[in-house]
Amino acid sequence: MAAQKRGRRSFCFTRQPVIRAWASVAGKKESEGPLQPYFDYTNQDTYFGEATWEKAECRMQQLALEILLQKAGQREADIDLVFSGDLLNQCISSSFALRNTGLPALGLYGACSTMAESLLLGSLAVSGEFANQVVAMTSSHFASSERQYRYPLGYGGQRTPTAQWTVTGSGAVLLASSGTGPRVEAATVGTIVDMGITDANNMGAAMAPAAMDTIQAHLQDLGRTPADYDLIVTGDLGDLGREILLDQFRKAGVNLSGRYNDCGVLIFDLQEQDVHAGGSGCGCSAIVLCGFLLEQLRRGVWKRILFCGTGALLSPTSTQQGESIPGVCHAVSICGEGK
Amino acid sequence: MAAQKRGRRSFCFTRQPVIRAWASVAGKKESEGPLQPYFDYTNQDTYFGEATWEKAECRMQQLALEILLQKAGQREADIDLVFSGDLLNQCISSSFALRNTGLPALGLYGACSTMAESLLLGSLAVSGEFANQVVAMTSSHFASSERQYRYPLGYGGQRTPTAQWTVTGSGAVLLASSGTGPRVEAATVGTIVDMGITDANNMGAAMAPAAMDTIQAHLQDLGRTPADYDLIVTGDLGDLGREILLDQFRKAGVNLSGRYNDCGVLIFDLQEQDVHAGGSGCGCSAIVLCGFLLEQLRRGVWKRILFCGTGALLSPTSTQQGESIPGVCHAVSICGEGK
Repeated sequence: MAAQKRGRRSFCFTRQPVIRAWASVAGKKESEGPLQPYFDYTNQDTYFGEATWEKAECRMQQLALEILLQKAGQREADIDLVFSGDLLNQCISSSFALRNTGLPALGLYGACSTMAESLLLGSLAVSGEFANQVVAMTSSHFASSERQYRYPLGYGGQRTPTAQWTVTGSGAVLLASSGTGPRVEAATVGTIVDMGITDANNMGAAMAPAAMDTIQAHLQDLGRTPADYDLIVTGDLGDLGREILLDQFRKAGVNLSGRYNDCGVLIFDLQEQDVHAGGSGCGCSAIVLCGFLLEQLRRGVWKRILFCGTGALLSPTSTQQGESIPGVCHAVSICGEGK
Repeated sequence: MAAQKRGRRSFCFTRQPVIRAWASVAGKKESEGPLQPYFDYTNQDTYFGEATWEKAECRMQQLALEILLQKAGQREADIDLVFSGDLLNQCISSSFALRNTGLPALGLYGACSTMAESLLLGSLAVSGEFANQVVAMTSSHFASSERQYRYPLGYGGQRTPTAQWTVTGSGAVLLASSGTGPRVEAATVGTIVDMGITDANNMGAAMAPAAMDTIQAHLQDLGRTPADYDLIVTGDLGDLGREILLDQFRKAGVNLSGRYNDCGVLIFDLQEQDVHAGGSGCGCSAIVLCGFLLEQLRRGVWKRILFCGTGALLSPTSTQQGESIPGVCHAVSICGEGK
């Protein structure tokens, strides 16, 4: 009975998917940040050579997929499944990036948790023996997000100190049933948590309770403690959400400090890059994972990390209709090659 | 190596998930159509007692879930996973329907193919031994769709003869690792096919090529012919898309007639209900499945059907930017209890 299930919400993969390759594509501001050396491709043109920002975002996913396959020495025909999604209405970056490629495609919506959600579902497909090679992929773009969620960019709207900066980037991983690389060994599915936060410029506060809920469920379902991980990394609570999460864990008697960080904090230099509370967007945790985090695992700097994708499940319509902001967090445990 | 995989894009489930229960919630127009006797709950109020149409759509999903659990004699705590999605920007009906329920939730975006996509992924979770009980669920609402995709309803925009009518409804199924009921035995993942159709009022033509592609892949991957199914049912090509599909199969030398139909055609009386080319929306194939189709399988009228959810992966933004309309189709093969 459900041999790969642990507790209420977690999986323990009996055939651990190998992350054979990863690829990241990043924009101008991201290329000026501390993780620049880890990106496979950067472009100073916010349009990536396309006519609109939405098409630029789609182009980024195409580039991430191309580079991924190149790095892995695989062709599109070798891929059994693609899981992808993004923030744009009707997830058009993901759908248009895959059209007429012949790639079997399953669309996701998990807001900024999409990298973790796609990794989790891709791992389920490989470990369940439904696929040999799966791509998990997502993207976001500062300009396409701003105009969809907030103001036209030309309006020059003021940003509050709690606001986060949507990352321009796309990340992709190749999960496989064999080969070498970091391995996905366990995962925990999020529940949708809404603590009544209504400020759409304070996503960190809206998402922190979901992150806490999932990390606690993960540790409980698998009988682990934070010490079982070299790093627990959320994406993307930003600076403020990160502090809220640390504070809440402290109150619960759990000390995360020293082994906790957030992709929205790692991606930018918060003092120098004028991004207020840090990075956000599906692309943020995606390009932090598909570069910096996986590279550290490959090099043996860390043995095991818990990658916790966080998403705020609001829309401009829900905000206009007076709704508060539900959050979700999916967690994926990834081991280094050696372990 | 991938024991549950067949061919490039198909799965053959070694532990066939049982559809233990299903539930459907429908609006006024749907309750006046030919499938009225199969709906669990109908409401003549387009607001379902809520303040807005978006909240009404969310309420429909909550009702479908409640009725589903009641029919199955299960509590929320007995459910391991929910796969759901919808058409609204950022899938707010699905996310808000599940907030603070404690249900582990994975969000999907497959446009009108979501019922099939959620059924496929739920089956993968059960057959892969990741979950014992999974809910697959979706919804759509005529009024929330019209104002998001087309015109404000008060404007009274004219509809073209090729336009389809978005169904107001929500459907949910309970997939389980044991019990009795129809069984999911195989599935085929769609690829994203774009044949250059640019008329956003002619979704049937845009989606028919994706349906053809997936049905052909399904038959090829599993070494079957249409005669292996009592019914092949797309959702939702409408009247026009249905004719295009039949015509294309005829040209390919495959005779589907007599064993093919479409959910968008089944849901309404096309002569009497003024819905032009038929029904559409995630809710259309969902409530045709979670009532009429599953009931016929339960009664033994049919032994095996191929349920092919079709989705048009456009957005108003992609249309405004001059893009054509990509389609996708995911197919799920369901057997009656006896077989």
